[in-house]
Amino acid sequence: MELKRPYLLFLGDVPDALAAKTAIGIVDWRKDWCVGQVRLPGCKADTGLPDIELQQAIAAGAKTMIIGVVNAGGVLPDHWLDSIVAALDAGLDVASGLHLRLEDVPAIAEAAKRNGRQLHNVRQSDQKFKTGQGTKREGLRLLTVGTDCSVGKKYTSLALERGMQEAGLDAIFQATGQTGVFISGRGVSIDAVVADFISGAAEWISPATEPDIWQIVEGQGSLFHPSFAGVSLGLLHGSQPDAFVVCHETTRTNMRNVKHPLPSIQQVIDLTIACGQLTNPNIRCVGIAVNTQALDEATAVSTMAEIAKLHDLPTVDPIRTGVAPIVARLQQEFEL
Amino acid sequence: MELKRPYLLFLGDVPDALAAKTAIGIVDWRKDWCVGQVRLPGCKADTGLPDIELQQAIAAGAKTMIIGVVNAGGVLPDHWLDSIVAALDAGLDVASGLHLRLEDVPAIAEAAKRNGRQLHNVRQSDQKFKTGQGTKREGLRLLTVGTDCSVGKKYTSLALERGMQEAGLDAIFQATGQTGVFISGRGVSIDAVVADFISGAAEWISPATEPDIWQIVEGQGSLFHPSFAGVSLGLLHGSQPDAFVVCHETTRTNMRNVKHPLPSIQQVIDLTIACGQLTNPNIRCVGIAVNTQALDEATAVSTMAEIAKLHDLPTVDPIRTGVAPIVARLQQEFEL
Repeated sequence: MELKRPYLLFLGDVPDALAAKTAIGIVDWRKDWCVGQVRLPGCKADTGLPDIELQQAIAAGAKTMIIGVVNAGGVLPDHWLDSIVAALDAGLDVASGLHLRLEDVPAIAEAAKRNGRQLHNVRQSDQKFKTGQGTKREGLRLLTVGTDCSVGKKYTSLALERGMQEAGLDAIFQATGQTGVFISGRGVSIDAVVADFISGAAEWISPATEPDIWQIVEGQGSLFHPSFAGVSLGLLHGSQPDAFVVCHETTRTNMRNVKHPLPSIQQVIDLTIACGQLTNPNIRCVGIAVNTQALDEATAVSTMAEIAKLHDLPTVDPIRTGVAPIVARLQQEFEL
Repeated sequence: MELKRPYLLFLGDVPDALAAKTAIGIVDWRKDWCVGQVRLPGCKADTGLPDIELQQAIAAGAKTMIIGVVNAGGVLPDHWLDSIVAALDAGLDVASGLHLRLEDVPAIAEAAKRNGRQLHNVRQSDQKFKTGQGTKREGLRLLTVGTDCSVGKKYTSLALERGMQEAGLDAIFQATGQTGVFISGRGVSIDAVVADFISGAAEWISPATEPDIWQIVEGQGSLFHPSFAGVSLGLLHGSQPDAFVVCHETTRTNMRNVKHPLPSIQQVIDLTIACGQLTNPNIRCVGIAVNTQALDEATAVSTMAEIAKLHDLPTVDPIRTGVAPIVARLQQEFEL
């Protein structure tokens, strides 16, 4: 899949920033690729890019409009249709991270055909996989796991890739979700794979490499999320991580979109090790990444200090503090 | 999906009986629906039905040839093609439990079209699901879980349905795999569902019912199988069982098709409870079903006695002993 750049980001009228994490993630890591955002009345998300009209986007060179939002279930609201058709009529390709295929919506399929434009469904995979084998592969792998969905696993993974590269390590980000694929230009949306092939797809995403290369595998969901734990477990087994980092958001009380309370960080560490040992007996936790966006500086610092002390693990906020302490722990643990 | 009966069972040249568990399962529970089997040279599986020619099958009234075998990955060997095309040319529909869609094989698609025959892909689901919510639903559910794949979960589930009905309970088998769907005429092949919707599909399979109805949900894979644990976990979360039965095969040393050793029954009980509590805090193990097919009577009896004592749970072989002790334990535990 090759997306033409630059991007125009479509946010629809989503009710919060979490629902626009795709668009916001693209801007955070590839701002240079984006010319602006399009929002409908009532939209409560903001990437920080200028709100622009279609014709301004075209004038700025935009080639692809990205539907940069996610809904539970991946539904496309009817009242977004006009904007998508207008983008195709204006000459843009359209790329989507929703579950539904854009070409399955007749108005969109017709507009794409009429204008000779391409439709991309980043959440779909035409790649064929084998079932996972669980056999140890050469190379080193780090997986980000979470106490919940949408707590910063992709962010942490990208920050670790950058931080490890800055420390002289050979690190590469391996995307497993739609935003990651937009950012990296490769990878698989693992939640779109047929269930029988989850761990097989994870093995394909993080193949055998030279012994000293670290693959930073983007985690998905949570072993404790009743909607998505199966994906998280298959990804854990298939990526056979040597190391993992727990991602957590301190102010969350319920798991996203369901009524279940969050697990503790310790529960996540324990279950990740218990299950992960199946394909990597040496799996270990090397740090905790806390999303402290909702906290003031003093509270954030004391919260991270408490968590670090409780678990005896380097604890960072990738945005507020960077990930250097986790990179240092990795270097120490693996004698890099 | 409606399959026309009676069935002709196609076994290809699979290397062992496990690979033909679909066909064998159909014969075990719906022998009256089957007119015979077709085997290619080298086939090591046998349903016990007569080996018959296509024309004999037609004369006996056969309407559908069922490709009653599974391969890791669901591939269709090229040298089976002639038999499938011949069946279509002879006037049979063809139904498959393989991952691949029959209509994606040009020779099969053309033969079906040429003869006006139907192709059924039982492992495919056109049903749309929501993501799982994990909210408690009315009614009672029992899930069979395994130390491995192919250890008798479907068998045990069907035997429990029958045994519970004989004990006067309101029990219904809910299929989650291709053989189960062939046997019950409904259900979903849960390993064919898109990964994001595993638990949602399991919720759809075992919906809210009247309070005293037991749904016996067919388990899949094993939480300890590196290929399929994600499916097993999503099914556990989505079916939110009140009770589970561990299925085990005593002579197995490695997990099927991989190099991993089998977990202990106790490991399976512990991890099933640890994970299952997320959507049903009262989940409990009510029995152990041992496949003792490979053991002589004395060894089988002593093995079951040892397991029963070790775990303090009713331990049966559904084929050798029936499931009455587990049904009795259910009645006692749930005051039925």
